[in-house]
Amino acid sequence: MITVVKIGGNVIDSEELTESFCKDFAAMEGPRVLIHGGGVMATRLHKALGGEPKFIDGRRITDAEALKAAVMVYAGWCNKSLVAMLQKMGCNAMGLSGCDAGAITARRRPPLGGVDYGLVGDVTPESVNKQLITSLLNAGITPVFSAINHDGQGQLLNTNADTMASSIASALEAELVICFEKPGVLGPDGVIPSISESGFTALKEAGTVSGGMVPKIENAIKALKSGATSVRITSSSDLLSGGGTIISL
Amino acid sequence: MITVVKIGGNVIDSEELTESFCKDFAAMEGPRVLIHGGGVMATRLHKALGGEPKFIDGRRITDAEALKAAVMVYAGWCNKSLVAMLQKMGCNAMGLSGCDAGAITARRRPPLGGVDYGLVGDVTPESVNKQLITSLLNAGITPVFSAINHDGQGQLLNTNADTMASSIASALEAELVICFEKPGVLGPDGVIPSISESGFTALKEAGTVSGGMVPKIENAIKALKSGATSVRITSSSDLLSGGGTIISL
Repeated sequence: MITVVKIGGNVIDSEELTESFCKDFAAMEGPRVLIHGGGVMATRLHKALGGEPKFIDGRRITDAEALKAAVMVYAGWCNKSLVAMLQKMGCNAMGLSGCDAGAITARRRPPLGGVDYGLVGDVTPESVNKQLITSLLNAGITPVFSAINHDGQGQLLNTNADTMASSIASALEAELVICFEKPGVLGPDGVIPSISESGFTALKEAGTVSGGMVPKIENAIKALKSGATSVRITSSSDLLSGGGTIISL
Repeated sequence: MITVVKIGGNVIDSEELTESFCKDFAAMEGPRVLIHGGGVMATRLHKALGGEPKFIDGRRITDAEALKAAVMVYAGWCNKSLVAMLQKMGCNAMGLSGCDAGAITARRRPPLGGVDYGLVGDVTPESVNKQLITSLLNAGITPVFSAINHDGQGQLLNTNADTMASSIASALEAELVICFEKPGVLGPDGVIPSISESGFTALKEAGTVSGGMVPKIENAIKALKSGATSVRITSSSDLLSGGGTIISL
């Protein structure tokens, strides 16, 4: 069974967390794939270069300059730092962005509700070059993906890392582990051990689950419906413990 | 026969040259590997981020901030832009830095003549993971290397792209094509079609060959002595024509 692990900005932005995460990831057994976001670093770089990062409802509008910053940070610094660290830990990591060997071809997002998100690509399970990833895994290589993809026509595209991770997990019929800054989905009594699709509806209605947690769980349910065999939402430090929230249909 | 092609800053810095080079490179026959530098972009980024690029005898002193800029530009923007463009042209390119799947492990350069070059790595033919590159080529994949490597201990290192290209060509016993901004090594009557090792000594003494051309030819001769089967120095627009200067022993 393949495990697909997604980490977010909180790991990337901290050298200490990156190192301890890499140690745990390297210690995992079986074939696995890592997908990382880039945290606040791309926004910071974009600003340092004189740009003005724009967001609508928390979603980045990616113009040419924002894309350049994202590619430099995600596909460059974050990706290669993670790979070098994993290599040190004995994990034969290979950093990839979607363009590399045609691993993932995204579809440029058409304007949605009158909003043009710019150079942003959407990824589905069908976008994923399953054969390539499988042959790398069979060769003992651990793919480490940045959330930068391309359209196959020479255009790089910024991508949502959660969607990318769930699409890869679906395509590979893998276990998906989504790491974020909390130990799982939190309820009044701490981490909720498991949430079913119907339970999710009830939790939303009760207001227990709200904000950024909603699309994370929606994305998890979508992954399960598209081929992923299991989804766990947890913190990076609980990668090996098995703790967190299991999402089920 | 494998061909190893190296391009420099003049191609990377021009969108037009990048596109026409990628078209030609994609049209080449047989297995091939591309190595690229990063041009002036890394220096520009380093300055924009408040750093002060330092050079001694034309060689960059790479401190932590300079390395970060180099990794972002070379391994990030330049590498992924080239790969996306090559994919568009029908070449199944895969962008790699030395850390990826342990492709190249560099040795951090010890202080030379009292000068500490910082986070710089030296690459030799023995640093090259020949088996990995060969198996990628056999799978129909064209590796595209940035001149960013690692030491295997978690440290990314900046590398001279010419040396990296000649080391890869030597390790693979390949033909090496070094592209730069001129159509070849220039003499009083235009491009010198071929230069032997002894001829090089005479040209140096006569002052016909000087400056940055000297280490380029020295590097070419070293490649031939270490396993490369041929070396041609030419411009990126003469990749397919076969024009330029052939270096021989």
